[in-house]
Amino acid sequence: MDISELAQRVAQGERRAIARAITLVESGRDDHRAQAAELLAALGGARQALRIGLSGTPGVGKSTFIEAFGMLLTGQGLKVAVLAVDPSSTRSGGSILGDKTRMERLSRDPNAFIRPSPSQSHLGGVARRTREAVAIVEAAGFDVVLIETVGVGQSETMVAEMADVFMLLLAPAGGDELQGVKRGIMEIADLIVINKADGDLKPAATRTCADYSGALRLLRKRAQDPDEFPKAVMASALEGDGLDQVWGDVQALTDWRKTHGHFAKRRAAQAMHWFEAEVQHGVLSQLAKSSAVADQMTALRTAVQSGDIAASAAATQVLATFFAKTDS
Amino acid sequence: MDISELAQRVAQGERRAIARAITLVESGRDDHRAQAAELLAALGGARQALRIGLSGTPGVGKSTFIEAFGMLLTGQGLKVAVLAVDPSSTRSGGSILGDKTRMERLSRDPNAFIRPSPSQSHLGGVARRTREAVAIVEAAGFDVVLIETVGVGQSETMVAEMADVFMLLLAPAGGDELQGVKRGIMEIADLIVINKADGDLKPAATRTCADYSGALRLLRKRAQDPDEFPKAVMASALEGDGLDQVWGDVQALTDWRKTHGHFAKRRAAQAMHWFEAEVQHGVLSQLAKSSAVADQMTALRTAVQSGDIAASAAATQVLATFFAKTDS
Repeated sequence: MDISELAQRVAQGERRAIARAITLVESGRDDHRAQAAELLAALGGARQALRIGLSGTPGVGKSTFIEAFGMLLTGQGLKVAVLAVDPSSTRSGGSILGDKTRMERLSRDPNAFIRPSPSQSHLGGVARRTREAVAIVEAAGFDVVLIETVGVGQSETMVAEMADVFMLLLAPAGGDELQGVKRGIMEIADLIVINKADGDLKPAATRTCADYSGALRLLRKRAQDPDEFPKAVMASALEGDGLDQVWGDVQALTDWRKTHGHFAKRRAAQAMHWFEAEVQHGVLSQLAKSSAVADQMTALRTAVQSGDIAASAAATQVLATFFAKTDS
Repeated sequence: MDISELAQRVAQGERRAIARAITLVESGRDDHRAQAAELLAALGGARQALRIGLSGTPGVGKSTFIEAFGMLLTGQGLKVAVLAVDPSSTRSGGSILGDKTRMERLSRDPNAFIRPSPSQSHLGGVARRTREAVAIVEAAGFDVVLIETVGVGQSETMVAEMADVFMLLLAPAGGDELQGVKRGIMEIADLIVINKADGDLKPAATRTCADYSGALRLLRKRAQDPDEFPKAVMASALEGDGLDQVWGDVQALTDWRKTHGHFAKRRAAQAMHWFEAEVQHGVLSQLAKSSAVADQMTALRTAVQSGDIAASAAATQVLATFFAKTDS
């Protein structure tokens, strides 16, 4: 494969080239990794998009929301890429972008590009591949990247760490049976969108929105938030209600952060976070690859758990093994 | 210092020996680290206590609460150790256990042992020292260890990772100006105690308790929690109200977790967490010590932040440097 030609075609926004480039960064093969590195270096980082993270469990109407929200943006002349992150995806479950039929209109839109989640993989790998896919669609000239996750494990935190704005999509809850939001998610959301605020569900949506507004007020103010943020709002993707308000909120938040320097600061911090994470991941995967280390940790496990050996003392033994191995 | 003699005296519950042993594990000197490892090995892990983490910012009446709660426990014949964790402590600020005068009665109680926070240190070091101090007071025969933190940085998460039960202490909030609870804390609390539920503050305490009860219901249920937990309750440490209920809740939660296997599972997971954390910390501190790595990361910083080089590609360069160094 001619990587510089691929880079050129990606930069021209050629859809097949974009798809092929993403397939390349998704591959775990060593030769593909080298080519992916070459491709990303060729693409550079000059073009950047607004990165919006979006989480919501199945049933909240996420596909309908993304389709309607995406169409709103393309209707304003913006180019929109949708990337799905689902560490548990097997492509068959259909829980997330298993095919493009769930967003039929958006997938036919020439200004939209939809990419399903890569097949099953560990979260670390998914994080790297998603960041690299973001870099590719940005180089291809997309204005907005929606990074979607169903929120398995730590995937929301991961997506929030690569997004400029993080939205949580919820469905209206009935009466007292409020849906359990996974721990830590309210803490990272910039915007909580109560979807399906239409028809019979409207009153429930209003209550749910008030509940989450109240809960958000209990959280400590972040420096990167203007007044009123994080906030809970209502929308109906089905009827198209409230979507322009959501986009208005995203823009207001983004503008404020840009004006006050938080936007660039957040991106710089995220970039360094991932750089350090990659370095640490690399060192720790050397550690994980060492069978001598694994054997020793297994051997020490019971003693550590019972407190018969302090974690620090056990670690000292393991480290001696690791660095002796590495030295030899 | 004769370590085996020190271990013996600690095991007999001698207060001066306990204090001396904790001073030893708090030291960063290499020879002291070796002696500390020897001491902890000699003490073993046969005796264990109920570990209660307790967080609360200055002003919530934490000292008064710990004193009253501690006296309640010693009044039942239990031996209680109080360990303070404050990564920001300079011993002079007086924000946390700067001296024992703030818990005068408890510090004079022969069944209680109070240990102030060690002087300023990084969180990783504080975590290890606190876990080792816990091991020492457990070996000394204490039944309950209260691990107290003012909640600077990530210290609550750290304390929760070494506690069987984690309590958050709050003061009543007036009207709409609800106190900002630090992000992530509600997620790890087993019990939120609204203190100062007495006199004029009683109505505000009732409202605050209801607010947090509502907020806790929004969180997803954890497998390790029985019905009604996590919960928010009211207490008045000053008047002694509600403390027996708090202790009852702690026991009910603990008993349920023991019956359902979550107690042992949580401890085993915590032990492995700290073991792995120590190993990773050891490897990563080798990385951090490398000036070649530091120079290269600084050199790559701008390119990574601008996206001109992918984090993974930059990391590959740094890792080559690190392992080349280690190999040589």
